[in-house]
Amino acid sequence: MAKYVYFFANGKADGNAKMKNILGGKGANLAEMTNLGIPVPPGFTISAEVCDYYYKHEKTYPDELKAQVEEAMKKLEETTGKKFGDPSNPLLVSVRSGAAVSMPGMMDTILNLGLNDETVKGLADATNNERFAYDAYRRFMQMFGDVVLKIPHEEFEKRLQKVKDEKGVKLDTELDAEDLKKVVESYKELYKEYGKEFPQDPEKQLWLAIDAVFGSWMNERAIKYRQIHGIKEGELLGTAVNIVAMVFGNMGEDSGTGVAFTRNPSTGEKKYYGEFLPNAQGEDVVAGIRTPLPLDELKNRMPEVYNQLVEIFEKLEKHYRDMQDVEFTIERGKLYLLQTRTGKRTAQAAVKIAVDMVEEGLIDEKEAILRIQPEQIEQLLHPTFDTEERKNAKVIAKGLAASPGAATGKVVFDAKTAEEWAEKGEKVILVRPETSPEDVGGMNSAQGILTSRGGMTSHAAVVARGMGKPCIVGCEEMEVDEENKQFKANGVVVKEGEWISIDGSTGEVMLGQLKTVVPEGLVGYVGKILEWADKFRKLGVRANADIPRDAEAARRFGAEGIGLCRTEHMFFEADRIPIVRRMIVAKTKEQRQEALDKLLPMQKEDFKGLFRIMKGLPVTIRLLDPPLHEFLPHEEEAIEQLAKDMGISVEELKETVESLKEFNPMLGHRGCRLAITYPEIAVMQTEAIILAAIELKKEEGIEVIPEIMLPLVGHINEMKYLKNIIVETVEKLMKEHGVELKYLVGTMIEVPRAALTADQIAEEAEFFSFGTNDLTQMTFGFSRDDAGKFLKDYLDKNILPDDPFKKLDREGVGQLLKIAKEKALPVRPDIKLGICGEHGGEPSSIEFCHMVGLNYVSCSPFRVPVARLAAAQAAIKHG
Amino acid sequence: MAKYVYFFANGKADGNAKMKNILGGKGANLAEMTNLGIPVPPGFTISAEVCDYYYKHEKTYPDELKAQVEEAMKKLEETTGKKFGDPSNPLLVSVRSGAAVSMPGMMDTILNLGLNDETVKGLADATNNERFAYDAYRRFMQMFGDVVLKIPHEEFEKRLQKVKDEKGVKLDTELDAEDLKKVVESYKELYKEYGKEFPQDPEKQLWLAIDAVFGSWMNERAIKYRQIHGIKEGELLGTAVNIVAMVFGNMGEDSGTGVAFTRNPSTGEKKYYGEFLPNAQGEDVVAGIRTPLPLDELKNRMPEVYNQLVEIFEKLEKHYRDMQDVEFTIERGKLYLLQTRTGKRTAQAAVKIAVDMVEEGLIDEKEAILRIQPEQIEQLLHPTFDTEERKNAKVIAKGLAASPGAATGKVVFDAKTAEEWAEKGEKVILVRPETSPEDVGGMNSAQGILTSRGGMTSHAAVVARGMGKPCIVGCEEMEVDEENKQFKANGVVVKEGEWISIDGSTGEVMLGQLKTVVPEGLVGYVGKILEWADKFRKLGVRANADIPRDAEAARRFGAEGIGLCRTEHMFFEADRIPIVRRMIVAKTKEQRQEALDKLLPMQKEDFKGLFRIMKGLPVTIRLLDPPLHEFLPHEEEAIEQLAKDMGISVEELKETVESLKEFNPMLGHRGCRLAITYPEIAVMQTEAIILAAIELKKEEGIEVIPEIMLPLVGHINEMKYLKNIIVETVEKLMKEHGVELKYLVGTMIEVPRAALTADQIAEEAEFFSFGTNDLTQMTFGFSRDDAGKFLKDYLDKNILPDDPFKKLDREGVGQLLKIAKEKALPVRPDIKLGICGEHGGEPSSIEFCHMVGLNYVSCSPFRVPVARLAAAQAAIKHG
Repeated sequence: MAKYVYFFANGKADGNAKMKNILGGKGANLAEMTNLGIPVPPGFTISAEVCDYYYKHEKTYPDELKAQVEEAMKKLEETTGKKFGDPSNPLLVSVRSGAAVSMPGMMDTILNLGLNDETVKGLADATNNERFAYDAYRRFMQMFGDVVLKIPHEEFEKRLQKVKDEKGVKLDTELDAEDLKKVVESYKELYKEYGKEFPQDPEKQLWLAIDAVFGSWMNERAIKYRQIHGIKEGELLGTAVNIVAMVFGNMGEDSGTGVAFTRNPSTGEKKYYGEFLPNAQGEDVVAGIRTPLPLDELKNRMPEVYNQLVEIFEKLEKHYRDMQDVEFTIERGKLYLLQTRTGKRTAQAAVKIAVDMVEEGLIDEKEAILRIQPEQIEQLLHPTFDTEERKNAKVIAKGLAASPGAATGKVVFDAKTAEEWAEKGEKVILVRPETSPEDVGGMNSAQGILTSRGGMTSHAAVVARGMGKPCIVGCEEMEVDEENKQFKANGVVVKEGEWISIDGSTGEVMLGQLKTVVPEGLVGYVGKILEWADKFRKLGVRANADIPRDAEAARRFGAEGIGLCRTEHMFFEADRIPIVRRMIVAKTKEQRQEALDKLLPMQKEDFKGLFRIMKGLPVTIRLLDPPLHEFLPHEEEAIEQLAKDMGISVEELKETVESLKEFNPMLGHRGCRLAITYPEIAVMQTEAIILAAIELKKEEGIEVIPEIMLPLVGHINEMKYLKNIIVETVEKLMKEHGVELKYLVGTMIEVPRAALTADQIAEEAEFFSFGTNDLTQMTFGFSRDDAGKFLKDYLDKNILPDDPFKKLDREGVGQLLKIAKEKALPVRPDIKLGICGEHGGEPSSIEFCHMVGLNYVSCSPFRVPVARLAAAQAAIKHG
Repeated sequence: MAKYVYFFANGKADGNAKMKNILGGKGANLAEMTNLGIPVPPGFTISAEVCDYYYKHEKTYPDELKAQVEEAMKKLEETTGKKFGDPSNPLLVSVRSGAAVSMPGMMDTILNLGLNDETVKGLADATNNERFAYDAYRRFMQMFGDVVLKIPHEEFEKRLQKVKDEKGVKLDTELDAEDLKKVVESYKELYKEYGKEFPQDPEKQLWLAIDAVFGSWMNERAIKYRQIHGIKEGELLGTAVNIVAMVFGNMGEDSGTGVAFTRNPSTGEKKYYGEFLPNAQGEDVVAGIRTPLPLDELKNRMPEVYNQLVEIFEKLEKHYRDMQDVEFTIERGKLYLLQTRTGKRTAQAAVKIAVDMVEEGLIDEKEAILRIQPEQIEQLLHPTFDTEERKNAKVIAKGLAASPGAATGKVVFDAKTAEEWAEKGEKVILVRPETSPEDVGGMNSAQGILTSRGGMTSHAAVVARGMGKPCIVGCEEMEVDEENKQFKANGVVVKEGEWISIDGSTGEVMLGQLKTVVPEGLVGYVGKILEWADKFRKLGVRANADIPRDAEAARRFGAEGIGLCRTEHMFFEADRIPIVRRMIVAKTKEQRQEALDKLLPMQKEDFKGLFRIMKGLPVTIRLLDPPLHEFLPHEEEAIEQLAKDMGISVEELKETVESLKEFNPMLGHRGCRLAITYPEIAVMQTEAIILAAIELKKEEGIEVIPEIMLPLVGHINEMKYLKNIIVETVEKLMKEHGVELKYLVGTMIEVPRAALTADQIAEEAEFFSFGTNDLTQMTFGFSRDDAGKFLKDYLDKNILPDDPFKKLDREGVGQLLKIAKEKALPVRPDIKLGICGEHGGEPSSIEFCHMVGLNYVSCSPFRVPVARLAAAQAAIKHG
């Protein structure tokens, strides 16, 4: 006969912690604790297999169920010495759902089941508290009516309010037993109004509650919850039902209830941490009406119970090998554990606990690594707000959390002012509708950046992450009025010079100047975890870094090279941009060459700077990528100045600016297409790279292996044409200077066609770096700058499980990665494969890169530790 | 011993027409004619295998070659009774290259080889014309010096000019023998100045000429020619060398030279057609100094020769089974054929000749079909310019030939004026920098459209092709000055109201009003060819048609359904656009619904119109696709009007317009993304489609099977979400009206991700229609509106073999088609697969669609006949 009901009581349970799939998390842990000899109120769990049966058999139960439940109830009565429905000593139970995966979206708990007009009196006698008994009764009626019979919750509240109004009081607690009896009567009427009858028969109550729990598995909230969390239809059997004898912490001063963590969930300190409320029920703690006492107080009040609790903590930690979050109740001096689960914790605590537990011998290094969410590591690298000040801060708007960390400063609305004020020692927050490369200087001077437009991979977001600066983008609640130098958000007007604080980890914008706290960084516990991670990971980790400061951060965080140096960022420096503009506006090849000749020594010094810091580690340099348009000024004033500088008419310059405008710049004249039109640019950049390497070798003995990378290649002929030019340039320089260098020429794979024809491209390219930002844009046909408008709908309506710009889309974009690898390898078995899109710093994407078998990931410097950890986790999980 | 030299003389040749790969086209045909008993001057061909050897062995020849050439020369001397280098009766030869594929980019011909200071005298004696002999000599020296020794051509011209100047004459013909002797001497000096010596030894001349021919195989022009024409390295062995005894048509009145076609190459009429020049050499005909006589004149002058020639024509046509283009020379009453090849012909002639030849039993229907270039068919459907007027027209600019046909009209610069003038009966050409959907009315009123920006798939190009109107786009030589209502092109200013003529087949813009000629269309010979084509093709052919007029054209041209009806085009009608704008600007769902309710009956009538014309043929209707932004006005005046109409402030409206602007609208909020944000739009459109079908069934007994198509799907969940909404809407209407309809719900495949996940999408989609315009944009990452800026460089530098927006890129985009088919078929074996991008009307792309195994192609109505023919050719070629 199939077993559907799992009993637990008195140190013996039918189930255990390993049976989560049929008992659910809660049921399995109750059984486990029982087996461990930990005092748990007796009860039983109806297997999730019954839920599965229920939906496969038109909402009916297997024949054996009824008898098994009846038998379990009988055992429960025997164990507790109480009787279900007994007016003098009634057994009351709680009925709770509980699936293998915690699903907060499912049905609420029903407590005090078993109460009726008769048993409520028995409860009043037993507790010596008639008020408590009737309060429990009316609560049960309310929960039961709402959850089981779908009578709207508000209707109950209205009835309750009415009684309070009649008495002229405000709080529930001001009602006495007689008042609550009135409420009970009024609730019975309410049931009738809805064509229902409150079942006085506890047996009936029980089965209706069981029906309701199984029914809740397919309610809208639960289905949505599973969709959102990627739990597929059929992945879980369903929910189990836990039926547990009620215990009461409000039976006098020898009773109480509390929650506790076996270690400090905030700091990770190995010290019990919790709260305790004497003569109270769990709900009272949650309601916050009474202030709970610290756990230590229990030591004074009930030392024996306290010692017993501490023993249990030790036992649980040893057993579960992780910090536990427990609920307990003391009923007349007797301790009961109601729940145990792995405790949630801060990033700092997670790291400390994991490291401590390895040292305590509880877990091994691999497990310690798996215990940390990689994203948490980054929190430990960025400033945060002072917790207290943060609590009281006025949030005026919320945008996309584009680059983590806390920043505070005076509001400015343009890059120039940001730079000027910063020079004077002011802290500023740069607020813009959106940023463009012209704003980079100002962004660099600011503490943080806030824009009203753009998505997670907009210019502001990408550059800010690169700089490691807090940034919020797409804050559409905010209206930026550049002209009047102010912004408006939800009715609040903030003018230039006023203080605001932004939290780049949550996307919140707050009024005023908040204190920030700088974290310790990569030392201590974090350093230990990353040291272990490096032992296990197979993926290399590089950083995207364009300037020496980035490169230094990259090395500090453990990057093993630069996977993406965007040369154009060098073009925006104040001393370069005029020359760059001359190059763009040039009418002849000669004029262009003249400008390039001026840029050459500057670029060369840039590269020397990077190479010197990277000390022989690989450095991948991408040739000029963005549309030339981005380098030109768009404001009247700047155009006039440039025209003057260049000795051409404003009209002529405007014509050039106009002619460079594109309908879809993302798909326009950019990437290697620029070098094909103007090979002289590629020549200059190659010269700068190679000369830098030659000089470093000669002057400082540093061996550099530059990796020259072409952006936006889609056709083998682009690669061939430009590789020829590059190789010719390099060979000429090496001959001229009598120096032999190793160097590689490779390409981004960021156009779908490149992935599809990777076999051809691999004939010429010595490495591939997947540019998954653009690849995602083109594979989905989503402009990352515009997707904000509809992506929200897509996520809300569960059309996409995740923002594909954040988490690599494995099925589509990921498929292209696989195709590219499978096509390239037979052609060039030693081809180096990396990723340098934003995804290179996102754990799920990194896991995928490991599974596909890439050689390395490259991400912004502050994500390097995240990537190291995520790569280790992937290696541990997938071998 | 390997055979490298193939001799031909006196009715017997070593080679034949099938040996083109080693003898080249010219050599093979000379051999073939010899074997046919046609009089050909004797000679021999050096195999292209020698060329292959030459490049594989550091420019040396196989050992056997010298002896074989010497032997062939000896035989040539025997055959002609002349001797190479013999001063009294010299054998002269021509040396010509000739590969298997005609390559005009290769070396020029060398004539009269064998002349030197001695043999020239013999020639003078033999021809009794000293002037001729020295003229031949100096020409030989010039050709030899230029082609073989790389002495610049202009240097020879300068020397010649000097002699003319000294004599005070202008024309070469005014120089007498003595003058020409001076020229010869001066040429000898020129050789010396360049450090060369003119070789007096004919043997030496011959080998230097042979070297030069083989050398020319790898000259820049030839390499480029092969690249452009897609001839891959190694596909051809190389060039052959033809050495043929000279014959002279200028040996008196019983000599002459001519060219002839075996049928009229202009009309196709079965009548010999050619020209003849007595006492002249081929060069004289080409030079145009003397006016040639019609071929008939030969009948009068040399009836026997004429009869012989006619017999040869008959023999050649019967033998080659195609119209021939021959060159002949008569030397002292003896006829020689110098060349025969398949004659080039006009579209009209091609069709007539193919049909005639089937009726004559020369070829079968399949071969007739293969003989016509599908593109030619379209020429027969569009007006052309009167040939004479066209010859003399002044071309002022050239753009991209975006939609074929000839148009003439007065220039207007805005759509409104176009409509107004057209209403008054004026013919107008609409000239714009670019067009937008707001211009559609004006485009419809115009005879033709001319834009200075945009590519082959820009708005103007696509809409014009749909309308079958001549159109030139991307005419960058033209600067449109809208303000002053004029344009400027290459210095010519054209003002509003002035006449221009545009040739949409060549891209040429001409001044003035040219007469146009309307062709006969799909009757007669063209009809016959297409009737045959329909027997063989396996691909269905549908049309892209949005309005009844398009649908009528589609049926007239033989479309078997509508493959793409773009519903948005219906939204631009004057009575709709205000309502559409209200829908877009709506602040609430209710406001939007109100506008949609007004659009519903209009859309329903649109669909009824289409369905009625298509009489039960399938009609695929695509739901709203373009970004909403495109429907809003952008000019101050229009915005003010709309704000007034809608009762909102101009500022509010402008904000909406602004908020809808996108960085990359191509990748923005469009396609099915609109329907996901505003499902009510999809509901309205579905209702209109289904109600139209229901009413037609009830009222007119027409059975329609609507195919509802979602644009821009990239993820199965988009498809699921919208299919649910559509199916629900349809089922509700069918129930309401008590009518059962068959209908399909399918999707465009135009986003790379859709192709990559076609297995998932096929679970829901009942058909796929490949939208290769967008698929090409996203697979390459090319914006079709912007690609003009760099595509030219790509084509010039041979980075791309073709414009991928014109000819489907088989390797990249085509690979996605294959992937999609292979993934979809196992999931849904009866899935209907079609293509509806511009490529659906392009022959090479159609061939590919046949090879991939699609079910149908869909193209603009005027391309339907092209597609029918191309589909038949693909079926014949690939089975």
